[in-house]
Amino acid sequence: MTSNPSPLSPDLIQRFAAIVGPAHALTDAALIEPFVHEPRDRFTGHTNLVLRPGSRDEVSAIMRLASDTRMAVVPQGGNTGLVGGQQPLSANEVILSLSRLNHILDVDPVGRTMVVEAGVVLSRIQDEAERHGCLFPLSLGSEGSCQIGGNLSSNAGGIGVLAYGNARELCLGLEAVLPSGEVFHGLKRLRKDNRGYDLKDLLIGSEGTLAIITAAVLKLYPAPAARELAYVGVDSPEKALRLFQDAQKRAAGELTAFELLPRIGMEFSLKHGVGLRDPLSSPHPWYVLIEITSGHSADDASSTLEEILGHALEEDLIRDAVIAQSLSDAAMFRRIREDMSWAQKPEGGSIKHDIAVPVARVPEFLRRADPAVLEAIPGARIVAFGHLGDGNIHYNISQPVGADREAYLARWEEINAIVHGIVRDMGGTFSAEHGIGQLKREELARTAGHVEIDLMKRIKAVFDPYNILNPGKVI
Amino acid sequence: MTSNPSPLSPDLIQRFAAIVGPAHALTDAALIEPFVHEPRDRFTGHTNLVLRPGSRDEVSAIMRLASDTRMAVVPQGGNTGLVGGQQPLSANEVILSLSRLNHILDVDPVGRTMVVEAGVVLSRIQDEAERHGCLFPLSLGSEGSCQIGGNLSSNAGGIGVLAYGNARELCLGLEAVLPSGEVFHGLKRLRKDNRGYDLKDLLIGSEGTLAIITAAVLKLYPAPAARELAYVGVDSPEKALRLFQDAQKRAAGELTAFELLPRIGMEFSLKHGVGLRDPLSSPHPWYVLIEITSGHSADDASSTLEEILGHALEEDLIRDAVIAQSLSDAAMFRRIREDMSWAQKPEGGSIKHDIAVPVARVPEFLRRADPAVLEAIPGARIVAFGHLGDGNIHYNISQPVGADREAYLARWEEINAIVHGIVRDMGGTFSAEHGIGQLKREELARTAGHVEIDLMKRIKAVFDPYNILNPGKVI
Repeated sequence: MTSNPSPLSPDLIQRFAAIVGPAHALTDAALIEPFVHEPRDRFTGHTNLVLRPGSRDEVSAIMRLASDTRMAVVPQGGNTGLVGGQQPLSANEVILSLSRLNHILDVDPVGRTMVVEAGVVLSRIQDEAERHGCLFPLSLGSEGSCQIGGNLSSNAGGIGVLAYGNARELCLGLEAVLPSGEVFHGLKRLRKDNRGYDLKDLLIGSEGTLAIITAAVLKLYPAPAARELAYVGVDSPEKALRLFQDAQKRAAGELTAFELLPRIGMEFSLKHGVGLRDPLSSPHPWYVLIEITSGHSADDASSTLEEILGHALEEDLIRDAVIAQSLSDAAMFRRIREDMSWAQKPEGGSIKHDIAVPVARVPEFLRRADPAVLEAIPGARIVAFGHLGDGNIHYNISQPVGADREAYLARWEEINAIVHGIVRDMGGTFSAEHGIGQLKREELARTAGHVEIDLMKRIKAVFDPYNILNPGKVI
Repeated sequence: MTSNPSPLSPDLIQRFAAIVGPAHALTDAALIEPFVHEPRDRFTGHTNLVLRPGSRDEVSAIMRLASDTRMAVVPQGGNTGLVGGQQPLSANEVILSLSRLNHILDVDPVGRTMVVEAGVVLSRIQDEAERHGCLFPLSLGSEGSCQIGGNLSSNAGGIGVLAYGNARELCLGLEAVLPSGEVFHGLKRLRKDNRGYDLKDLLIGSEGTLAIITAAVLKLYPAPAARELAYVGVDSPEKALRLFQDAQKRAAGELTAFELLPRIGMEFSLKHGVGLRDPLSSPHPWYVLIEITSGHSADDASSTLEEILGHALEEDLIRDAVIAQSLSDAAMFRRIREDMSWAQKPEGGSIKHDIAVPVARVPEFLRRADPAVLEAIPGARIVAFGHLGDGNIHYNISQPVGADREAYLARWEEINAIVHGIVRDMGGTFSAEHGIGQLKREELARTAGHVEIDLMKRIKAVFDPYNILNPGKVI
């Protein structure tokens, strides 16, 4: 299925605009600008119309009209996606922004649920949970601007997945508008419901190609009593993995983050981040960021963390470690990690990967991928960082110092092929958390089994027979 | 879609038997007998053929032949389902038993995964996990005979859902045979994978109507250091709920079971169970079974449990409590709970419900449902027990003492209508964990939104265009 939208005539623009009101139908290029650029500047879209509906019923009316006229619609949340899923492929595709559906509809701290519209920004949900003595554990670098509808559409991951799961695991119910304009009513606040096929999980992660999520019921957790964070220097990914296994045994569900960071990523963060310093006194080849969360007390969290680190020192698993002594220490530790993504930008071109392999095989993956990449591009700077506890590594490769950016980026697919070949051989995935979007659509079609692709295509046709909803994405 | 299978001719029986070998194609009524009766004796099926394939390829060959000849096939695991999903509706439907696919294919205690064939019995998986220092937390009354394929097909719940989730949350990957005989290859050992639509979760909970699960990758947890169990007497469901909230705050992820039990259920268990005694010295209107699991130590689990109970006594939330002092105490506490299902049988007819409402509304549900039921059937004995922490109550109603069993059971649908009406009004579900099967199919069709039903039907047609796989179930 490819995108082949009808032209967006002035008359049609008028009819769409009438649904949301002229103030919320943007046709001016300057106003449209922020909707067609995404953070990495990799996918610049074009559109002649951005609609900003204010309610589910307006979303539904837009889709009815789109369905009647066979116009393509691209749903967009906070526009922070990394695979181009939220960008139109043609100027005739209408962007439907969910950002005005930004109401928190209900918070139930006893039943630990929150009902939100799709356009609510993630950090607002985190804050609202906290105000009610609860925790919403989804946590991403872009949490200050990404929206929950986008998080669910892309089944977002992030740092909290280790203990709490992806966005999928944090959602109890959904409301969504189908391409036909019909509404799927599934705002259930139930912990358990086995009535028929799991349509909710089919919509989650479908990247806005099956339906437009308009509201969701989120799962809250009791607010933890305390969190403790340590910054740890280690020799190698092998030792980091052994540290992970030991920490998991000692802390079980209290181990709420375990991130692997390479020295070069640390250097990029320190060089380009403002107000950051190396938490440890001397450099180490690799680092691990460990978070322990206790439901009981700060003492409990500290003693668990100290037990883990003490044992690791004895066993020679780690070289050095420091525990955050203040909120500002903790914030800085987190920022070194979070800044690692964008701190690659000033270093020139970066060829990105979002891979996962079985957790125990991450060191093996790195041992195989690094020499293969360096053979292809001598001098390439490999910034392999991320969620070791999930087996998910952002295996990003910055260009050699002084190389030509464009010439380097032209080798994107060649390098992907090398890295993903190793991943495939290890039973891994080339898209652990960022999704497919437009970036990885061909790769999905090429590498997934024909049975799987065929099922996906036929499911797409069930929901979207005219292929008007986010065409050319995913499948 | 209804079942309308072709007749199962002797020639066809021969062709099916040739796939599995004559020893594994049962046509003798005595041999077939155990496959067509289920534990509650509610759904007695009939079939002229039970096939016991020994491999995925044989399952695939069976489905290819079934597809070519338009024969209906009913997949069956441990035959413990409670809604008749595993029973044929006509003698022309072939039962396909997965019980010979009973191999544990791989255990990875580092990556914490286990790969199993569909016919492995749940308790064997639990034991195997334990042997490797891990925990597989799915835990059901029928765990000694139910099979993991059936657990996944029905998205089984049970006691561990509170902390670990349903079967769905415990599965990383699936292999399944489609009605066409094609194989869906999804045995992924990855913690994260965002490649396209979530077909795995569509198959989980589809009760063998979309595909036959033949193998799965399961998620393991580190084996806990200790578990502590308390039996608690409380005044009312309201107080039990407040106890739950407090326990959840103090224990967070360490609260691994929270079951509500009524006095009458306790009496049934004590009366009909062998070797059980009331753990508390005097009777109480309600009971709660609390389990605390610690990754650290027995001391840690005990102190958390004591803190919860101490606080609850101070706040007058509970009347009395006892902590299991030995493994045999703990086993008995669990048996009182587990025996509560079948201990209703000797008390005559029982009209069952498997409802869930938002957790905080369980007491309200009971306040509304009890008088409505007693008005309809004075003297009915309500045995409302189950997973308070999930909002899921097995709201079972035993006949009045001395009533006629058949006349009582004839009122099943009338009583369902009363109870489910209240549940619906509260945003709840009439099938929290047992599924739809044949028992609740009409009710699903009648009560779900037409958009949802329509999507389910069209998805069924994508997988099973000839309606040969478990026809007449779910949708």
